[in-house]
Amino acid sequence: MYHFTFHMPAKVLFGPGTLQELHSEALPGKKALIVISNGTSAKRFGYLAALEKELDQAGVTYEVFDQIRPNPTSDNVMDGAALGKQTGCDFVIALGGGSVMDCAKCIALMMTNPGHIWDYSLSVNGGKKQAPNAAAPIVAITTSAGTGSEVDMASVITNEATQEKTGIFFPSMLPTLSVVDANLMRSVPPKFTAYQGMDAFFHAAESVICKNEHPMGEMFALKAIELIAQNLPKAYANGDDMEARANVALANTLAGFYMLCTSQHTMEHAMGGYHDNLVHGAGLIMLSHAYFDFFASRKACEPQMIKMAKAMGVADATSGKDFIKALDDLIASVGCADLRMSDAGITRDELKKYPKRIHEVLGGDITADPLPLSDEDYLTIFEEAYK
Amino acid sequence: MYHFTFHMPAKVLFGPGTLQELHSEALPGKKALIVISNGTSAKRFGYLAALEKELDQAGVTYEVFDQIRPNPTSDNVMDGAALGKQTGCDFVIALGGGSVMDCAKCIALMMTNPGHIWDYSLSVNGGKKQAPNAAAPIVAITTSAGTGSEVDMASVITNEATQEKTGIFFPSMLPTLSVVDANLMRSVPPKFTAYQGMDAFFHAAESVICKNEHPMGEMFALKAIELIAQNLPKAYANGDDMEARANVALANTLAGFYMLCTSQHTMEHAMGGYHDNLVHGAGLIMLSHAYFDFFASRKACEPQMIKMAKAMGVADATSGKDFIKALDDLIASVGCADLRMSDAGITRDELKKYPKRIHEVLGGDITADPLPLSDEDYLTIFEEAYK
Repeated sequence: MYHFTFHMPAKVLFGPGTLQELHSEALPGKKALIVISNGTSAKRFGYLAALEKELDQAGVTYEVFDQIRPNPTSDNVMDGAALGKQTGCDFVIALGGGSVMDCAKCIALMMTNPGHIWDYSLSVNGGKKQAPNAAAPIVAITTSAGTGSEVDMASVITNEATQEKTGIFFPSMLPTLSVVDANLMRSVPPKFTAYQGMDAFFHAAESVICKNEHPMGEMFALKAIELIAQNLPKAYANGDDMEARANVALANTLAGFYMLCTSQHTMEHAMGGYHDNLVHGAGLIMLSHAYFDFFASRKACEPQMIKMAKAMGVADATSGKDFIKALDDLIASVGCADLRMSDAGITRDELKKYPKRIHEVLGGDITADPLPLSDEDYLTIFEEAYK
Repeated sequence: MYHFTFHMPAKVLFGPGTLQELHSEALPGKKALIVISNGTSAKRFGYLAALEKELDQAGVTYEVFDQIRPNPTSDNVMDGAALGKQTGCDFVIALGGGSVMDCAKCIALMMTNPGHIWDYSLSVNGGKKQAPNAAAPIVAITTSAGTGSEVDMASVITNEATQEKTGIFFPSMLPTLSVVDANLMRSVPPKFTAYQGMDAFFHAAESVICKNEHPMGEMFALKAIELIAQNLPKAYANGDDMEARANVALANTLAGFYMLCTSQHTMEHAMGGYHDNLVHGAGLIMLSHAYFDFFASRKACEPQMIKMAKAMGVADATSGKDFIKALDDLIASVGCADLRMSDAGITRDELKKYPKRIHEVLGGDITADPLPLSDEDYLTIFEEAYK
């Protein structure tokens, strides 16, 4: 029978306009290090100004660190932590997508701990140390609906010196307060709306087929699947459809509350490891038909796939193939039916290198698939997915 | 569009046997005041001994306070707090059902705050003070599946001196750790299994029809309804069906995560105010057909009732009446079809006193019904429900 733990101390404010409630929340410090990307959108769309207004109202001072690149680096972490310490910040506010939130968590860790961020990495060249101190408190304000990083303790950081990209996580890196305000997602272009939303979809779909799933996790995941199937096509077609945006944002966070990813996530990380320009959500979409159909064809998790198909609106679903059809339709409805590995620079020849890499990268749990996959099975799926 | 906050800092351990994991959790103190009822079951069924073994393994000492009566009193609170302070306890462990958990929360409050518990009551004769200090940390180990008290900050306490029964709640009264172990519910007799399980069902069903409901709350509530409809009849028929017990226990806690009760709960509190012997869950069952049918007959919340009917297994539900039929069937399947107000000592004549009382007692939100109810409407429902 199932045993599981639910622990989500982060307080989450949901809904369009919730950023404008921030001043009335008990903020976890007196001076914030605001962390944003090295792009222009946080400033151009007024998100930063809106945040600063809230902090002014709350009587909280701040410094802005605007250097986070996509696939954030250990240099980003150390530079941000140095600024935070030099300027006397006692907490961190991430305002951005997954990269910004991930990097902000490590900045918060290094504002209160000695040494270099890689001392705390579990990678081959990482120091594998326990952090002696809790991270500085973190407030996460997400501007994308795709990673769930606002409700987890994990970050993915690249170390350019050692050419490693790995996860770093400590319980104190879970945000204490998260804002999921779809008004901040209005500016995400359709293509990225689709990639991010489908990433969230796969967090949920992998969790449903994961052999460690339990009723509470399934509840979150099926609700996320239902909301994404109903709303992502609308948010893709019309980025100003704020009800659709809000529902996709809620789905993303729900999928983050109890995420139990399987090997699809690991397979995509293997692809991404060789192709830094491949967007994670796009890589998942490229794999997904072949990956889920591998299990559907073998009837490996029929009840779970039928539940997912029903959550996607196929009321009379009777087999895993109904889920595969619904998945294909969803991908087509968000303009991603023609995504090709070859367009991302992947050659058919290199696929045979991937199964070995699966055992080296972090990501989903490769022991939790509905059927255990061999390296041959992985290769079969990669080859089926290739176009 | 919806705006809501989700904040559930309590860590919850789910599953049969999780009490035996307690020694490996970080407990919030060095010496526990264990609070149990004045009955015999915690001792007779070995639950107290099992808890003491866990604390011994964890190196935590303890005192036992075994004086909590059903409908716990302010004297219970003050006596327990005095024992906790005298013996140097720095946290509280509640081992019991709703009465024990509620009282333990107030004991924890009074272990760290001056004066009398009624100083902090919002009732007419209460002091309405803010507690200057946080309550001592609370661990809740529930032995019933019905109140959701393990995941809320509320308690209901009776003051015999002022003849008041009221809710007392502060954020620090939310348990930091909760154990939902169905093995501790095996000894609940069928009748109380039904009453408690139906209380949880109505927490969920009222939340679904509540006009302030939002997608996340609905998710918790519909899952609770589904689990109870599938499992409560099994747990009622065979108390040793531990899978059914575990699913009902999970449903109860899920319904507690985001509870938005409507006026049915208030109506029952009005009944219970005049009849101390009336079990809360039984009172709700007596009301429920007439209450929900009032809205179904007026088509006040058809989509919500159809969702509930579907969650209860009526795949082709098309109207609120389908939910009413499913509710009647569920009540019959747990042996409660013949519950009568008259058997609890309620006379038809006294019903007319109840509408006024509804405005005086705490309970559900009487402003959040799908249709606003007048005093005449309340009386109509009471009279329809009477037998």
